[in-house]
Amino acid sequence: MVAEREQEGKLDEVGVSRPSSVPEGASRYALGVQSLSQLDENQVENLEATFEDISPDLARLVIEYGFADIFSRPALDIQHREMATLAALTAMGTASAQLKFHIKAALHIGVSQIEIREIIILMSVYCGFPAAINGTLVLKEVMSESSSS
Amino acid sequence: MVAEREQEGKLDEVGVSRPSSVPEGASRYALGVQSLSQLDENQVENLEATFEDISPDLARLVIEYGFADIFSRPALDIQHREMATLAALTAMGTASAQLKFHIKAALHIGVSQIEIREIIILMSVYCGFPAAINGTLVLKEVMSESSSS
Amino acid sequence: MVAEREQEGKLDEVGVSRPSSVPEGASRYALGVQSLSQLDENQVENLEATFEDISPDLARLVIEYGFADIFSRPALDIQHREMATLAALTAMGTASAQLKFHIKAALHIGVSQIEIREIIILMSVYCGFPAAINGTLVLKEVMSESSSS
Amino acid sequence: MVAEREQEGKLDEVGVSRPSSVPEGASRYALGVQSLSQLDENQVENLEATFEDISPDLARLVIEYGFADIFSRPALDIQHREMATLAALTAMGTASAQLKFHIKAALHIGVSQIEIREIIILMSVYCGFPAAINGTLVLKEVMSESSSS
Amino acid sequence: MVAEREQEGKLDEVGVSRPSSVPEGASRYALGVQSLSQLDENQVENLEATFEDISPDLARLVIEYGFADIFSRPALDIQHREMATLAALTAMGTASAQLKFHIKAALHIGVSQIEIREIIILMSVYCGFPAAINGTLVLKEVMSESSSS
Amino acid sequence: MVAEREQEGKLDEVGVSRPSSVPEGASRYALGVQSLSQLDENQVENLEATFEDISPDLARLVIEYGFADIFSRPALDIQHREMATLAALTAMGTASAQLKFHIKAALHIGVSQIEIREIIILMSVYCGFPAAINGTLVLKEVMSESSSS
Repeated sequence: MVAEREQEGKLDEVGVSRPSSVPEGASRYALGVQSLSQLDENQVENLEATFEDISPDLARLVIEYGFADIFSRPALDIQHREMATLAALTAMGTASAQLKFHIKAALHIGVSQIEIREIIILMSVYCGFPAAINGTLVLKEVMSESSSS
Repeated sequence: MVAEREQEGKLDEVGVSRPSSVPEGASRYALGVQSLSQLDENQVENLEATFEDISPDLARLVIEYGFADIFSRPALDIQHREMATLAALTAMGTASAQLKFHIKAALHIGVSQIEIREIIILMSVYCGFPAAINGTLVLKEVMSESSSS
Repeated sequence: MVAEREQEGKLDEVGVSRPSSVPEGASRYALGVQSLSQLDENQVENLEATFEDISPDLARLVIEYGFADIFSRPALDIQHREMATLAALTAMGTASAQLKFHIKAALHIGVSQIEIREIIILMSVYCGFPAAINGTLVLKEVMSESSSS
Repeated sequence: MVAEREQEGKLDEVGVSRPSSVPEGASRYALGVQSLSQLDENQVENLEATFEDISPDLARLVIEYGFADIFSRPALDIQHREMATLAALTAMGTASAQLKFHIKAALHIGVSQIEIREIIILMSVYCGFPAAINGTLVLKEVMSESSSS
Repeated sequence: MVAEREQEGKLDEVGVSRPSSVPEGASRYALGVQSLSQLDENQVENLEATFEDISPDLARLVIEYGFADIFSRPALDIQHREMATLAALTAMGTASAQLKFHIKAALHIGVSQIEIREIIILMSVYCGFPAAINGTLVLKEVMSESSSS
Repeated sequence: MVAEREQEGKLDEVGVSRPSSVPEGASRYALGVQSLSQLDENQVENLEATFEDISPDLARLVIEYGFADIFSRPALDIQHREMATLAALTAMGTASAQLKFHIKAALHIGVSQIEIREIIILMSVYCGFPAAINGTLVLKEVMSESSSS
C-alpha cells in the first residue's frame, strides 16, 4: 500500500493542475460517460432515460460534475471513492436509491461484500443504529436481487 | 489489492463469528484502549480527562463500543475505516471536532493528505459544497497546527 | 421588481406590527383555512380527514401556525414563499410528501415548472446530487399524475 | 415524582460504576435479550432472522450495545427512555421503521397514546411540521394495525 | 406512574378540545410568557432583547407557538417535555445554544443531572457518538458555569 | 411577474440546450468568476486565497460548478436563486458561514432585509425554531457588521 500511495502522490501533483482533470481533446460529458460506465455500463442510459422529459440537464450535470470533474480525478482510486461514498450515503440516511446503486457499483469494481457490510456497521459508531440498519437492509436487497437473477 | 482482499475474506470468516471480535482473555476496555491508541496515543487519556467529572461512562462506551467492538474488527483495514469515517463526518456536518481528530488519526496511520483532501472534495457530489468547504477548513486547521509545531 | 419590493416594504411596516398578521375579527383558524386554500382548495379537508382520529390538534396547528401566523404575512409574496419552501424541502430530503404537495401548490399559484426544476437543480450545489435527484423524481411524479388526469 | 428521582439518584451512584451496567455472571448478549424483550418479546428473533444471512453481527451489536450496555442502565426508567427515543426518531426523520417499532414498544410498556401523540406534536417546535406530520402518520399506522388485529 | 398516566388521560380529553389550549380570556402571548418563565424567568426578556432590532416577530412567534400553543398543553408534563426536547436537540446536532438553554431549564424544573446525562448517552444508540459527545460537552459547560457562579 | 415568467420560459428553451449554459468562447472558470462577482466582487479572490495552499481545486470547482454551470443558468433570476439558497442554508443548519455570505450577497443584489428575515421566519414551519433562530442570529451579525462599517 505504501507503493500505491507514493504513486498516487505523483499522480496528484498532476491531479491538482487544471488540465489533468479533463484530458485534452475529451469533452467533459464523454469523460463522465466513461467514468460512470466503469461502475455500471447501463447507468448513463438509465439516467438519460429517467430525466429526459423532466430535467435533462440534471442527468448531464451528474455525469459532467460527478463523474468527469470529480470521479475521474486520479488522486483517489475508485475502490476508495466507492468506500467513502457508501459511508456518506449510509450516514445521510436520505439517499437509499443512491446507496443501492453504489453498493452494486462497489461490488462491480471489486469492493467485497464483507467490506461493504463492515463500512455500514462502522456507521453505527458515527450515525447510530438506524442508519446502519437501514443501510444493511439496502445491502440485503442488492444481494437478494443478485442471487435471484 | 486483490491479495489483500482475499486475506480479508479469510479473516472475515473469523470476523463474523462472535469470539473473534473480542479475543479471549482480553477485556473490551483494554482492547479498545489498544485500538484507539493506534490512532492517537494520547486520546484515551484525553477522553477520560474530558469526561471524568461529567459522564465517565460515555468515555468508556466510546472506547468499548467504538474501538473494541467495532474498530478492532478485522474485516476492514484501519486505513479504510478512517477513509469511511472522514467521508461520514464530512457528510454529517455536525461533528467538526470529531472530523479534526480523525483527520489527524488518518494522517498518523498513513492515509495521505492528498487522499483526505480528495475524500472531502468527493463529498461535494453527495452532500454539496458547504460540507466540502467546511471539511476542507478543518483539514486546513490540522495542517496549519501541524506545521507550526 | 423594484416597484414590487417597495410595495412589500410598505406592507412590511404593517407586517411586523402584531395586529396585522391576524386581521381583527378573523380567527386564526379561518385565516389559515383561507391561506392554505389558495395553494390547494381541498387541502384543509384532506388534513382534517387524515388526522381527525389520530391527532386532530396537529391539523389545526398546521393551519393556525403554518398558514395563519406565517404564510399569510404580507412581507413575502406567496410565489416567493413557495420557492423558498421547495428549496428547503428538497434540501431536507426527509419530506417527500410535503415536497410533492408544495410542487403542486407552487404550480397552482403560478410558479413555472421551469423555475421549480431549476430550484431543485440549484440544490445540487448546496446539498448534493442525491437531494436534487430525489427532488426531481418528485417533480416527475407530479407532472406525470397531472398529465394523466 | 420527586421520590422516584431520588431513588434514581441512588441507583445512579451504582449506575456510573462499571460493574453495574453488566451484572456479574450475565453475558452482555443475554442481558440485551432480556432488555429488548421487555419492549417486544419477538424482536430478538425478528432481528436475528432479518440479519442472519446478511450481517449477523449487526443484530448482535444492536442487542449488546443498544440493549445491554445502554437500555438496561438504571439511571433512567424505561418509559423515559422510550419517550426520549420517540422524540429523537421523530426529529431525525430518516428512521420510520425504527419509529414504528418504538411507538409499539412505548405503548407496550405503558406510555399512553396521548403522550406519544404529544411528543410528536412537540417536535414541530424543534424540527418543523414535516417531521411532526410524518411521525404522526407512523403513529396512525401503528394504531390502525393494532385495531385491525 | 399509572395513576399519573390516568390523570393525564383525563386532562387530555380536555387537551384535544380546542378551547382548552388557550384558556379563555388569556392572550396567547401572555400564556406563552407564563409557560416559558417556568423554565427560566429571564428568557422572555432575553428573547425580546435579542431579536427586537432584527426580527421582533420571531421572538413573539417562539413565545406564542412554542410556549402558548404547545408547551402549555396539559397532555404531557413539563419534565417529560424537557426530556423529549433534550433528546431531539442532541439528535439534531445543529442547535447547541438551544440545547444549553434546555439543559438549564430541565435542571430548573427538577429533571436531574443524572437523567440528562443518561438521555444524552442514550442518543449514541440512535444518532451515534459525535452527537452524544457534543451533547455531553454542552452539559459540561452548563455544570461548569453553574458551579462557578 | 407574469411577463417575467414568460420571458424566463423563452430563455429556458435555450437554457436546457447545452451550449447556452456556457456561452461560446467563454471558459467555465471565467464565466463562474463573472457570476460570483455579481454577488461579491471580492469573493473569487477570497476563495482562491483561502484554499490555495490546502485544496486549490475545491475553490475552482465551486466557481466552475456552482457559479458557471449552475448560477449563471438563465432559467431562474438571481434574486430567486438567492432566496432559495437562503432557505436551504437556514434549513440545513450546518452552513452558517455560507449563510452569512449569501445573506450579504442577497442584500447586494437587491433582496430586501425584510424578505430575508421573512424567509428565515418561514423556515420555522418546515425546520423548526432552532433553525429559524440560528439563521436570524446570522442575519443580525451581518446587519451589525454592515452598520458599524
